[in-house]
Amino acid sequence: MSSSFGQVFRIHTFGESHGGGVGVIIDGCPPRIAVSQEQIQHELDRRRPGQSEIVTPRKEADIAEILSGLQDGVTLGSPIAIVVRNTDQRPGAYDEMAAKYRPSHADYTYDAKYGIRSASGGGRASARETISRVAAAAVARQVLDSIHPGIEVLAWVKSIQELNADVDPETVTAETIESNIVRTGDPAMVEPMIERIKTIRGDGNSVGGVIECVIRNCPPGLGEPIFDKLEADLAKAMLSLPATKGFEIGSGFSGTLLTGREHNDAFRMIDGKVRTLTNRSGGIQGGISNGEHIVFRVAFKPTATIMSNQETVTSDGANTELQGRGRHDACVLPRAVPIVEAMATLVLTDHLLRQRAIQPIF
Amino acid sequence: MSSSFGQVFRIHTFGESHGGGVGVIIDGCPPRIAVSQEQIQHELDRRRPGQSEIVTPRKEADIAEILSGLQDGVTLGSPIAIVVRNTDQRPGAYDEMAAKYRPSHADYTYDAKYGIRSASGGGRASARETISRVAAAAVARQVLDSIHPGIEVLAWVKSIQELNADVDPETVTAETIESNIVRTGDPAMVEPMIERIKTIRGDGNSVGGVIECVIRNCPPGLGEPIFDKLEADLAKAMLSLPATKGFEIGSGFSGTLLTGREHNDAFRMIDGKVRTLTNRSGGIQGGISNGEHIVFRVAFKPTATIMSNQETVTSDGANTELQGRGRHDACVLPRAVPIVEAMATLVLTDHLLRQRAIQPIF
Amino acid sequence: MSSSFGQVFRIHTFGESHGGGVGVIIDGCPPRIAVSQEQIQHELDRRRPGQSEIVTPRKEADIAEILSGLQDGVTLGSPIAIVVRNTDQRPGAYDEMAAKYRPSHADYTYDAKYGIRSASGGGRASARETISRVAAAAVARQVLDSIHPGIEVLAWVKSIQELNADVDPETVTAETIESNIVRTGDPAMVEPMIERIKTIRGDGNSVGGVIECVIRNCPPGLGEPIFDKLEADLAKAMLSLPATKGFEIGSGFSGTLLTGREHNDAFRMIDGKVRTLTNRSGGIQGGISNGEHIVFRVAFKPTATIMSNQETVTSDGANTELQGRGRHDACVLPRAVPIVEAMATLVLTDHLLRQRAIQPIF
Amino acid sequence: MSSSFGQVFRIHTFGESHGGGVGVIIDGCPPRIAVSQEQIQHELDRRRPGQSEIVTPRKEADIAEILSGLQDGVTLGSPIAIVVRNTDQRPGAYDEMAAKYRPSHADYTYDAKYGIRSASGGGRASARETISRVAAAAVARQVLDSIHPGIEVLAWVKSIQELNADVDPETVTAETIESNIVRTGDPAMVEPMIERIKTIRGDGNSVGGVIECVIRNCPPGLGEPIFDKLEADLAKAMLSLPATKGFEIGSGFSGTLLTGREHNDAFRMIDGKVRTLTNRSGGIQGGISNGEHIVFRVAFKPTATIMSNQETVTSDGANTELQGRGRHDACVLPRAVPIVEAMATLVLTDHLLRQRAIQPIF
Repeated sequence: MSSSFGQVFRIHTFGESHGGGVGVIIDGCPPRIAVSQEQIQHELDRRRPGQSEIVTPRKEADIAEILSGLQDGVTLGSPIAIVVRNTDQRPGAYDEMAAKYRPSHADYTYDAKYGIRSASGGGRASARETISRVAAAAVARQVLDSIHPGIEVLAWVKSIQELNADVDPETVTAETIESNIVRTGDPAMVEPMIERIKTIRGDGNSVGGVIECVIRNCPPGLGEPIFDKLEADLAKAMLSLPATKGFEIGSGFSGTLLTGREHNDAFRMIDGKVRTLTNRSGGIQGGISNGEHIVFRVAFKPTATIMSNQETVTSDGANTELQGRGRHDACVLPRAVPIVEAMATLVLTDHLLRQRAIQPIF
Repeated sequence: MSSSFGQVFRIHTFGESHGGGVGVIIDGCPPRIAVSQEQIQHELDRRRPGQSEIVTPRKEADIAEILSGLQDGVTLGSPIAIVVRNTDQRPGAYDEMAAKYRPSHADYTYDAKYGIRSASGGGRASARETISRVAAAAVARQVLDSIHPGIEVLAWVKSIQELNADVDPETVTAETIESNIVRTGDPAMVEPMIERIKTIRGDGNSVGGVIECVIRNCPPGLGEPIFDKLEADLAKAMLSLPATKGFEIGSGFSGTLLTGREHNDAFRMIDGKVRTLTNRSGGIQGGISNGEHIVFRVAFKPTATIMSNQETVTSDGANTELQGRGRHDACVLPRAVPIVEAMATLVLTDHLLRQRAIQPIF
Repeated sequence: MSSSFGQVFRIHTFGESHGGGVGVIIDGCPPRIAVSQEQIQHELDRRRPGQSEIVTPRKEADIAEILSGLQDGVTLGSPIAIVVRNTDQRPGAYDEMAAKYRPSHADYTYDAKYGIRSASGGGRASARETISRVAAAAVARQVLDSIHPGIEVLAWVKSIQELNADVDPETVTAETIESNIVRTGDPAMVEPMIERIKTIRGDGNSVGGVIECVIRNCPPGLGEPIFDKLEADLAKAMLSLPATKGFEIGSGFSGTLLTGREHNDAFRMIDGKVRTLTNRSGGIQGGISNGEHIVFRVAFKPTATIMSNQETVTSDGANTELQGRGRHDACVLPRAVPIVEAMATLVLTDHLLRQRAIQPIF
Repeated sequence: MSSSFGQVFRIHTFGESHGGGVGVIIDGCPPRIAVSQEQIQHELDRRRPGQSEIVTPRKEADIAEILSGLQDGVTLGSPIAIVVRNTDQRPGAYDEMAAKYRPSHADYTYDAKYGIRSASGGGRASARETISRVAAAAVARQVLDSIHPGIEVLAWVKSIQELNADVDPETVTAETIESNIVRTGDPAMVEPMIERIKTIRGDGNSVGGVIECVIRNCPPGLGEPIFDKLEADLAKAMLSLPATKGFEIGSGFSGTLLTGREHNDAFRMIDGKVRTLTNRSGGIQGGISNGEHIVFRVAFKPTATIMSNQETVTSDGANTELQGRGRHDACVLPRAVPIVEAMATLVLTDHLLRQRAIQPIF
């Protein structure tokens, strides 16, 4: 198990889907930062189940309790511990899961690795663990606002299956994204996407898609070659999320179709700053931010939980069939938007503090 | 700077393109493993310049010297230091680079981050640093062979621009890949790909593409949720490589077009083992290997160095033009194949040792 | 702030003296270890205030709640989170502390470092944070019992001021130590030590002393040169405890009076094992355990809180006087005994797992 | 093996006593620091054998070669690799050592841990590995001079056996210490100490002693509770050195004889600064520097190599006798002085950079 992330702004998470709760310790948070518990709660509410008609109806309020590290709402420099209790526990609902491995879930691999697993609701492999990430990132967000105001981190649903949103990373706003329950940045795609999710759910099936994310106003100089390049840490952050299958930055996979002459981003002086005329690099060159918008995309597979009978095996090694059952999201993407933003925010905050250690220019 | 990778089998690298040399310390290597210097040299030869008519003609023998950690060819358990001297240094050839930022290179971002940079040949941002990775992985390979024989790591050129190789990860062999200088796994694509590279080079231009990699016979149980999931560490490893823009595993981005019913990998007992009937998961579920082939793809952008004049700025902040010049690869993919294998091998070895720490079942 | 300890068996702690609570996440705990909550509580009871007439009367039950990582009392391999609520909070009692720096406490240095501090009861610098260590070590103890039974970790009060206990590390028992409230291993010193503490407390003064600790049946081979030598990690563990001023192992400081001829531990084969005839090395040679008893001593200064008026300064930088007040231990050593054992147990468990990663011989 | 030290200013060392060489990679060094190779060489010369009539006559020039990380003598921010070749190799001289375990050396424990060892000259356990530490610290020293000038780190021989130097940490100078080959700070003890070493060497015997170290002008605020307290990291640094058996800071073990009323350091405003009237805390309170002199002592056991026949066992498990032979120091302390300074300098530099990450006040 490795439930730590970050080097200087470092988080340690815990919690199974069905147990006492989930939570996080943030170690390395700078002192004297005002932290609003409302903002933490706001972000948790953006990811929680039951928030709209197209997400899982699991009812959990997901209330964050801060146990340490703050005094009168200001950080002390000591570890900040946040706990969110589990309240909607129905272990009985998962009896079949204890006996049979759900296809494309982590049941079998946890057993293979640990020789034991928490069967109820997926245990540690449940998406419920992302609460810890979102809570920590809500604190990180306030650190950024305090020590380097103006950095924006904005994600949206870019596609659901072949339904592709037309969104300009340069201009898209949080208001646009949050104005619709599917959290896409293209108003024209709201209805088609919602329809698709409802249809697929009605069929007991599920869909995936792509989330796009932009980081605006990132200062040049963040990222630590050779191994902790900014895109490398973003890639790791995103691929550590449940259900992700791919990551690309800037021109990504489609950039492989271009020639160098087409792909290179020419430099120009603009308003006294070094800028690029195009941004196929996606805001990062040589592992270090160049001051342009950082733009990346993350692929999410269709939810593994479906309402069909599926071939599988028991934990005793016998072929069997699994009945479709349980609460789930037919499409995780709307709820994954704040989680993608959270991981990007954690990466940025850590790298900003790492940069300060070697070169206090920010 | 963060030039360390891995948690238990841990490497620390150093070296600029033009300086005393490049190298690596491997810390955490198990004792009493026979290490052949020839195998290290063999892997370095696979990545070195000048190995064929389609790669950069830079002439460096890249001879590895082992300074510590071995006794009569057997590991002592102490750090293994490997140094490769730089021999082909022509600082004069890089005068223009010192004054002007090369588009889509790391010149500007290194200056922005450190306030200084090694202009000659790209310095630390040169692909020459991958020598350290390949040398370390050649040792890791021998560790794998000793403590868990049979794991295969095999990469090949999947595509160059739109030229797409048809390769079966299940059956492709090292012999097929190494039999052609472009290192693709599809004999039918060898000539078209070589032609494309020669044509593009003749035009002073460059191309990119996709490398695919398979890990065969990986035991189930490797990977450390939540953050050090196996695919997360692979993604970070690949995105830490120069010129990479994307990573996907299993069904990847195209898997987002499917429904859950189509995408899920049903389990079946086969020969007494838990197996999946399809492998859209790409050999990893919940961040842990499931015993199926691990299959992933990495996007490489077209080489940034081209033989055209390009708009750019000077390090003093004036608009200017950069002349095309210098030695380079018109397509880095043939030489990147052993580097992708190297990073995958390092990730696997580290996770195998990490698993032994908590659960000595292997 | 760095509130993490260990490399493989890794703990992350949090909590101020007066806030929601204190606690710990244990990451890297092997799966399928039976963990008894009673044992955790038993160790917490050994360190808690109010347990006898010679310790601080602060009344806190210090009840451990386990939030994650266990299923039916067995470890899952996922992070184990333990929380102990703060219940006896009297912020009002600490108003003077907020304004004035207590001599030889951490008030001033926390302000100097963070520009803010939690004044109530010492905040993060309170000995209350050791609850997290003791709880984590109680789990570690059960890991040791499961994967390498027979290792004993036993500490006792060796001296209080000049009162020196005569204890044989080879034969002293837990029963002897726990049979007296001062936790010394020498029955003849129980009454003198208790008398000293009572007298000094009656005078509003405080005393320090030395705790000695033995690790029996430690297998040879633990410790990771060059920097993570076993004695180096023990030294760090002990000096990270509040109020400690020194650490010595084996012959320690008095060994500097001997010549090499007197000091060397001759080897002999005994019962088929490599043994030493003397143990001035203290069970560790070259940073690695040699199978002999590991014996070390830790110096604790006299408690900084005393009932006298003391010269000091205000946080505004004015000279002033501090009134003696508040609850405290006139001598921390009886309660520090389980804490020293806890840190030694954490070091051992981590090194045992680290050794398994490179060499699965245990 | 763990050959890494530090969190932000991080070093990775390698090398056996008899092999290609020893060396270090420094990762995390701030950019644009002028580094003088002469200063590195000067420090290596202070620790090298053969420098005076009272140290081992082993003749090695110990010339440092810098392979990376510098450009025209200025740091690039990339890893700095330094290699020192081994030149005086006489493997033949160590045949007996391969067969027999030297008492109080690491021969047996390396075998127990790794199942293999480098017998020649002690291999990785040789004091020759401290070259890496000294070279890295010489760079760290220049970083300190650049980003926080004025911090002094000064060590001296405090005692050899019962010969105790009378030295005032507040006023002792490098000139005094370096003016005598035994490196004590008390001119009156120079001759007695030299005589003692010569006499003991003439007898084929060895002696140990205590080194004291002061850090002057350390800014308040360095140290990272709870586990990376400044004294905890200093203790680990010192106990990781060969032949060390104890560490104490400030009042240390003798402070346990005092009462709190005698021991507490009263605060006073002096010249507008918060100061303490006494310094029993040794410059650190609650794990954080308070601006007073940091004073600590390290116990070194008598050298294990002596010229007498000693009882021991063979690596095959038979009782035998070891002949006294080989080159060695009858007293390691004069050469250990720069090594103690080196480790203290590394700890300080790392903590200074760590502090900048969270709070850029320095």
